[in-house]
Amino acid sequence: MTEPAPAPAAGSHRCPGRVGIVGLGLIGGSLGLDLQAAGWAVQGIVRSEATARRARERGLATRVDTDPAALTGCGLVVLALPLDRLLAPPAALVAALPREAVVTDVGSVKAPVLALWQDLHPRFVAGHPMAGTAAAGVEAGLPGLFRSRPWVITPGPRTDPGAIEALERLAEAVGAEVITAEAATHDRAAALISHLPVLVSASLLLAAADESDAGVAALARQLASSGFADTTRVGGGNPDLGTLMARTNGTAVLAALRRCRHQLEAIEQLVQDGGWPDLHSALSRAGQERSSFRGCG
Amino acid sequence: MTEPAPAPAAGSHRCPGRVGIVGLGLIGGSLGLDLQAAGWAVQGIVRSEATARRARERGLATRVDTDPAALTGCGLVVLALPLDRLLAPPAALVAALPREAVVTDVGSVKAPVLALWQDLHPRFVAGHPMAGTAAAGVEAGLPGLFRSRPWVITPGPRTDPGAIEALERLAEAVGAEVITAEAATHDRAAALISHLPVLVSASLLLAAADESDAGVAALARQLASSGFADTTRVGGGNPDLGTLMARTNGTAVLAALRRCRHQLEAIEQLVQDGGWPDLHSALSRAGQERSSFRGCG
Repeated sequence: MTEPAPAPAAGSHRCPGRVGIVGLGLIGGSLGLDLQAAGWAVQGIVRSEATARRARERGLATRVDTDPAALTGCGLVVLALPLDRLLAPPAALVAALPREAVVTDVGSVKAPVLALWQDLHPRFVAGHPMAGTAAAGVEAGLPGLFRSRPWVITPGPRTDPGAIEALERLAEAVGAEVITAEAATHDRAAALISHLPVLVSASLLLAAADESDAGVAALARQLASSGFADTTRVGGGNPDLGTLMARTNGTAVLAALRRCRHQLEAIEQLVQDGGWPDLHSALSRAGQERSSFRGCG
Repeated sequence: MTEPAPAPAAGSHRCPGRVGIVGLGLIGGSLGLDLQAAGWAVQGIVRSEATARRARERGLATRVDTDPAALTGCGLVVLALPLDRLLAPPAALVAALPREAVVTDVGSVKAPVLALWQDLHPRFVAGHPMAGTAAAGVEAGLPGLFRSRPWVITPGPRTDPGAIEALERLAEAVGAEVITAEAATHDRAAALISHLPVLVSASLLLAAADESDAGVAALARQLASSGFADTTRVGGGNPDLGTLMARTNGTAVLAALRRCRHQLEAIEQLVQDGGWPDLHSALSRAGQERSSFRGCG
């Protein structure tokens, strides 16, 4: 049986070795299922009693409470909260986090989370499990979500090495592949492969939707096929998430948007000038580059 | 048994009712398989003897020849050729097309095809079966490709109504859904939902690939997931096809590119200004609009 991070201090642990998960949505719920399957005891914390009941029915945690005080004694606490709540955490939650526990998060932007939380908790370590589906909420969690997926850990100069090791053990317990990077590097990479695609895909959708000729607009809707569906999938996703990504990772997202706009302008110029050999080269290069990105083989 | 278009003149048909298919790649080969399954006799024409042998082995047509003269007696001929060959057809092929046969094509851009071919053959009717995979060549054809997919017919003022009916019967024989539209309307709709996605997706790929910070570039490649893979799939496709679409549908593609660039610029401005409520509205609208496009439900 794999054990979570041992708490360093010999405190009064009601349940030593227990992992706390705050939020039992897609990430928190999936993590609860996998950790329990690996033999870990999981203390879930959710906001409403209705969610707690459903989380218990689904078996997302060993115990589920609405009072953060139930985290007492947890050696490791995962804040599986949306970015906005993570960046404006309830004072009662912060106060309830055991000081000796390792605390981590699952947010998709890391620099602002690290900047805030390294001052809020002495053993905070920032993380980002890169797994997900379009689903959210207490019904979304599912087993095996993290298997063979990257779990990025972004330590800062002040991050406790023991806390990093504890998070590595947690990630490995659910089959994830640990990758360590600087928070700023993570955020710039995430802007390119995760946040930019959302905004570009949405731009494409809106361009197609805003066709002013009614006949063309209707036919376009009728003829759309898998290519259009694939290219616009992430742009038609959760607008809260898309806005949060742009808001919390603004500098990197803006740089990525600019670079993409320049590429689009260059292609527009080639089409306008009839630069077909150059357009062919650009499209060839796009195809060659694509295979170097994970999951695009 | 469903019969193809009867030839109107009582010509010397070696094999009346036979359908000719010129080119046995993805579209031609798939059509040959489905038409034979529906009981039609199919005369395939390919360029090389090696391809002919392989097409015979795969059973893509009832007969396969390299000499277009074998089309003699076909009541309906489908030109399943790439757009560039369709727009610069070999003189021997044009000369070999029976004058009394209905002749159609499968090109993804319709106005230039109609403009050329309505002068090359008296019974030409322009069509576009909207089905496909990334595969090409004699190995690509597969059964059922057209089932429940749109087959757009774009008649001109001079198109023979009997030829339209013949093409409708062919499309219905393979389970496609016939949609009639003006060639220009088709081309503008195709620019929005098919050609623009290729160029936007390629721009996104090149923006991500051209990251100058080596650490960010490497991490982006390592962290790319299904969202990036989906959004860049069509942009990493066949560069010949992407270039041909832009070249043959330049005006509509350019208008679509401009509209998409304006959307991207507007989103960039919102991110720069911190216009989060407006960005949220734009992303919400993208999600709502998406469900009105076929295949995006």
